[in-house]
Amino acid sequence: MAANTFGEQFRVTTAGVSHGPGYVAIVDGCPAGLPLSVEDLLPDLERRRPGQSKIVTQRDESDRPEILSGIFEGKTDGTPIGILFRNEDQKSRDYSDIVDKYRPGHADFTFDAKFGFRDHRGGGRSSARETICRVAAGAIAKKILALKNIRIVGYVKQVGPIQAEIPDPTAVTLEQVEANPVRCPVSETATKMIELIEAVRKDRDSIGGICELVAVNVPAGLGEPVFDKLKADLGKALLSLPAVTAFEYGNGFASALLRGSENNDIFVKKNDRIGTSSNRHGGILGGISSGEPIVVRVAIKPTSSLSRNQPTVDKQGEATEILTRGRHDPCLLPRFVPMGEAMIALVLVDHLLRQQTKRIESLD
Amino acid sequence: MAANTFGEQFRVTTAGVSHGPGYVAIVDGCPAGLPLSVEDLLPDLERRRPGQSKIVTQRDESDRPEILSGIFEGKTDGTPIGILFRNEDQKSRDYSDIVDKYRPGHADFTFDAKFGFRDHRGGGRSSARETICRVAAGAIAKKILALKNIRIVGYVKQVGPIQAEIPDPTAVTLEQVEANPVRCPVSETATKMIELIEAVRKDRDSIGGICELVAVNVPAGLGEPVFDKLKADLGKALLSLPAVTAFEYGNGFASALLRGSENNDIFVKKNDRIGTSSNRHGGILGGISSGEPIVVRVAIKPTSSLSRNQPTVDKQGEATEILTRGRHDPCLLPRFVPMGEAMIALVLVDHLLRQQTKRIESLD
Amino acid sequence: MAANTFGEQFRVTTAGVSHGPGYVAIVDGCPAGLPLSVEDLLPDLERRRPGQSKIVTQRDESDRPEILSGIFEGKTDGTPIGILFRNEDQKSRDYSDIVDKYRPGHADFTFDAKFGFRDHRGGGRSSARETICRVAAGAIAKKILALKNIRIVGYVKQVGPIQAEIPDPTAVTLEQVEANPVRCPVSETATKMIELIEAVRKDRDSIGGICELVAVNVPAGLGEPVFDKLKADLGKALLSLPAVTAFEYGNGFASALLRGSENNDIFVKKNDRIGTSSNRHGGILGGISSGEPIVVRVAIKPTSSLSRNQPTVDKQGEATEILTRGRHDPCLLPRFVPMGEAMIALVLVDHLLRQQTKRIESLD
Amino acid sequence: MAANTFGEQFRVTTAGVSHGPGYVAIVDGCPAGLPLSVEDLLPDLERRRPGQSKIVTQRDESDRPEILSGIFEGKTDGTPIGILFRNEDQKSRDYSDIVDKYRPGHADFTFDAKFGFRDHRGGGRSSARETICRVAAGAIAKKILALKNIRIVGYVKQVGPIQAEIPDPTAVTLEQVEANPVRCPVSETATKMIELIEAVRKDRDSIGGICELVAVNVPAGLGEPVFDKLKADLGKALLSLPAVTAFEYGNGFASALLRGSENNDIFVKKNDRIGTSSNRHGGILGGISSGEPIVVRVAIKPTSSLSRNQPTVDKQGEATEILTRGRHDPCLLPRFVPMGEAMIALVLVDHLLRQQTKRIESLD
Repeated sequence: MAANTFGEQFRVTTAGVSHGPGYVAIVDGCPAGLPLSVEDLLPDLERRRPGQSKIVTQRDESDRPEILSGIFEGKTDGTPIGILFRNEDQKSRDYSDIVDKYRPGHADFTFDAKFGFRDHRGGGRSSARETICRVAAGAIAKKILALKNIRIVGYVKQVGPIQAEIPDPTAVTLEQVEANPVRCPVSETATKMIELIEAVRKDRDSIGGICELVAVNVPAGLGEPVFDKLKADLGKALLSLPAVTAFEYGNGFASALLRGSENNDIFVKKNDRIGTSSNRHGGILGGISSGEPIVVRVAIKPTSSLSRNQPTVDKQGEATEILTRGRHDPCLLPRFVPMGEAMIALVLVDHLLRQQTKRIESLD
Repeated sequence: MAANTFGEQFRVTTAGVSHGPGYVAIVDGCPAGLPLSVEDLLPDLERRRPGQSKIVTQRDESDRPEILSGIFEGKTDGTPIGILFRNEDQKSRDYSDIVDKYRPGHADFTFDAKFGFRDHRGGGRSSARETICRVAAGAIAKKILALKNIRIVGYVKQVGPIQAEIPDPTAVTLEQVEANPVRCPVSETATKMIELIEAVRKDRDSIGGICELVAVNVPAGLGEPVFDKLKADLGKALLSLPAVTAFEYGNGFASALLRGSENNDIFVKKNDRIGTSSNRHGGILGGISSGEPIVVRVAIKPTSSLSRNQPTVDKQGEATEILTRGRHDPCLLPRFVPMGEAMIALVLVDHLLRQQTKRIESLD
Repeated sequence: MAANTFGEQFRVTTAGVSHGPGYVAIVDGCPAGLPLSVEDLLPDLERRRPGQSKIVTQRDESDRPEILSGIFEGKTDGTPIGILFRNEDQKSRDYSDIVDKYRPGHADFTFDAKFGFRDHRGGGRSSARETICRVAAGAIAKKILALKNIRIVGYVKQVGPIQAEIPDPTAVTLEQVEANPVRCPVSETATKMIELIEAVRKDRDSIGGICELVAVNVPAGLGEPVFDKLKADLGKALLSLPAVTAFEYGNGFASALLRGSENNDIFVKKNDRIGTSSNRHGGILGGISSGEPIVVRVAIKPTSSLSRNQPTVDKQGEATEILTRGRHDPCLLPRFVPMGEAMIALVLVDHLLRQQTKRIESLD
Repeated sequence: MAANTFGEQFRVTTAGVSHGPGYVAIVDGCPAGLPLSVEDLLPDLERRRPGQSKIVTQRDESDRPEILSGIFEGKTDGTPIGILFRNEDQKSRDYSDIVDKYRPGHADFTFDAKFGFRDHRGGGRSSARETICRVAAGAIAKKILALKNIRIVGYVKQVGPIQAEIPDPTAVTLEQVEANPVRCPVSETATKMIELIEAVRKDRDSIGGICELVAVNVPAGLGEPVFDKLKADLGKALLSLPAVTAFEYGNGFASALLRGSENNDIFVKKNDRIGTSSNRHGGILGGISSGEPIVVRVAIKPTSSLSRNQPTVDKQGEATEILTRGRHDPCLLPRFVPMGEAMIALVLVDHLLRQQTKRIESLD
């Protein structure tokens, strides 16, 4: 099955674990002729990288990819793009106590239940380092989207109880997001979030939050009517990331409280296109993009790894305690932003390519 | 592309529109030897059917399926199961005013943007009648799950601001759910919900809500580590249903507010298995089932069709008004329950079958 | 798995058995805007139909399809096309003796080995009546190909030892093929083939043969470089048809005897395109269409069902005899022609659609 | 699309070109618990390697793989297996004259037609070095098959007009095949084949041939009834290899000449199973394995690259000549044997895994 592949037309397949030799991603279905080099992948990889600031984990991974194939003379050539990441900073000793004990909130127990045993080193295949492949693939997807002027911006909207007021999500810029280590575009709120994360870290605890992501200039018509609705594929994409516990688009859960007369957006003429006067539908109607900005939010749970003793059991079910050594983000939100953007980019490119075959008149 | 197919191992492909001759579903991948007849499909189809009560739409559809293939002498024979539903009650005239006008909240505009034109009769392919295929397929999936003692129960947790207190979601029974037309297991709350829906209907308006769904006895180990996490596939499945605007599992959005020490569930010995003492993780860890009950919630937006004038534009972008005639549910929640259960059943059977090939020792 | 689905972008899913209520096909991925009606499907269905002439089986099946969905106001609308065929002429009694006995050359034994039991009526899922779905889907595919001026012609090249000389396969016309019941475009050879088939039938025996199929005006560039080579997909398509035991393209097996200097085709300028001066490569180089005519051949084994006693065993392995009652083609070749054409059409449309996304400049 | 992925349950995805940094394969779907190390891959890679003997190309490639993931403590762990091959011997200069000229029989022209341009170095993605990934994946598949006692042996049956008499294909051993560089199990015939290949090489020419492949102990029941017939998937697998121009199983093309009474195999009791007294059906009935040995043959065209001048055109269609420098096998057959075996192994494992979910009683 396609367990390690994402996408239909723009397909990303990944392999690797955090404490083996490395990771590899194969991007299949990228059209020929896209200018591309390793440098295009680096900015988002840098945003995803541990150790960028004191509020994220301090591991010193080398996140520089090697592109093995798929590019010829500076352009994609239509053949699959192989991307290799070497693992360098492997401190297996940090994880030695989890061989037999199940860390609360982690996949240790469920991997054992699934496969009969597991690679316990650093979380094995469940390590969030796997997202390095997604961010690299997402950077390629973003380059394609940029050709159509489609832009994706994500930011931290909430950390614990601290919430940013963002009156117009479509006005947030990458510069605002990158202006502080927590990636919240409202600087005063960012300061409070950082203080909270620092305090939590000192408590040897962690904290959750909410990330909001926006895609603008998405043409109307992307997404399929029934199973592969754009909202469904975006939901799957984001929920496939570690620690995401909830997804909503547009009004989301708030729509449960509303009447139809309050929730419907009214169609209006907008220059050269038809649009809506409000965007409670988050840019998606009937599962298909409407041309209005796509706005989604996801909840991220607090990091499960804690530098304090937690009760648990071992493989035999005997009660014990575990203290997860190693370096872990006290709050996953800042580094989540590029991961979430990448997944949205992968979905949008996939549906953009799928849309090429929907009308008989476009057969070239 | 697999635009009209759902699932990897247990695959459902559907075709049909509400005002054509009928719908057809093909269920591929059902193991041979499952006792099955049309009667097995009827109970959930009856729960999904319009016209069950005065708070749902009064169309008199014939929802009786014909099984065309895949069953021999009372048992599935391993070949694809074809299921046919005839459309009978086609009042095209009710929809005549939507040929050129875009209904707010509907897929009219986005279908035109996607395909260049659309079947405007009754919403065409975006009609919720398509879910009849899913509910039928889901009933087959439920029969397989029942062999493993896996049980799925959904219910209405909230309608507008009226919310039911459900201290133990795993204790809710089908009988409690079916005891009232709104499918809320708390009878006093159900009464209030019905009153609200009635009031909204008299206002020619509609109202949203929240559905909670629970699966018990799901074995640990279902779901794939990376892209096809169980939470991701459940999210996609439910978000692929019409009107669903949000999905969460376990603590969901509430986990954003918590610290890791508050959110982690502690592993404990439970008779013959390892489990957790609380279930904030909603039965899924690292994207894989933990053996604890799976608990998810979705938000359903208020019905977009309103029997009152709403401003909109026509195909040329000229301002106009539209009043959606026809009979529409003022609240989609009661009929959503079997749809949501069906999608969860499809995902669980799919992963149950996928799990058969995960260990070398199980090769027969 | 996609066991009952064929194609990636233009996908056909089928269900049904010969002695159940009927067959259904769902064609997913047909672009919107193609003029289409039931009448477009009838000519090829008529060519596939039993009882056309005295040299084919005399069953009187009703092969008229009902299109359930996917067409609106005379054009495909981009949603899946559901096609229903009712079974009418079900003489189950003809097959009563095969409940416990395994017919030589048939799938009776292997179905039992696979699923544990089987629908023994008329071959169940292995009945060649399933190809009715493929021929209908192929007729849609041919309509798309015709828009690009691509034309597919198949014909009977050999029956037993009688072989037609076809100096230029690309010059064969549908009219020549349909001029006689054996579908051999050389009329004198056709007469001899018919005589042989008649003689074989009187012997209560059957005879094999070879079908050649040609596609002209296929643009250069279709097919994928590695696994989904055009030759590989054509081979799979044709080998998935009942009774096909061999496939070759271009020089095929004859290339084993040649030297490279004899087998290579030389590139030359041809009006507005580059082509080759000979076509030993059968229109496919490196798995990708070259723009030259695609020429393939398949061998069809003699019908396994014989109206004479053959030794066999029953389910318990006890020796017995079987005489297959019912009406069977003494030679499968004449009715194979439209089936083979249909499969080629499905492959070519699939790759034509896939080609739409191969170059970045074609993103609309 | 799955253009660079093969298989449904046991999936191989490959990337890479012969003159880039290297190749990578990801094997997804291998069950957990299979003992596996790099050493398991080496024997078949060695058999595939250029430079083994004077009758194959003399390039000195380093064919030693690095396994990046999927193995933990000597066993597969259920996560994807990443395999990396570095390219070392890159003599780009050998290929400099093919930048603008189209080599006869090669994919140069068709790649340009498909993607608009191509990586011309060493054939780019169409280089047969890509099969290194398939042979590595096939070696893993063979290890799984060996657990079920399934064994695959391929050998060279014919080179040009020289044909080996193999009375019992199932009796051929790996040792016989590996006893001479041409991989023909009949030593006298092998000597003649080698002489012919030597003579052809001195002529700066090449020669085609036929490879026969046998799989024994394949259990009855593998393969799907309709599209994914075992014969169809084997045909696709082998035709996806470079230079394969024809495929047949069992009697193959010879069945065209036979009557049903001559071609049918008779079922008989064989110790503890039901089998057939002859094997004209090549181990496949109705597309499903019968338990008898699977026997297939493929034709391989003579190498297209010739060290002599051949007429051709350049990109502008201007007539020119080309002499393909570099080192090329004068006959592809000897090195084809492990490639063909690998593809058969991939198909059999895929269907073996698919078979795990076909009966309801096998749900664990």
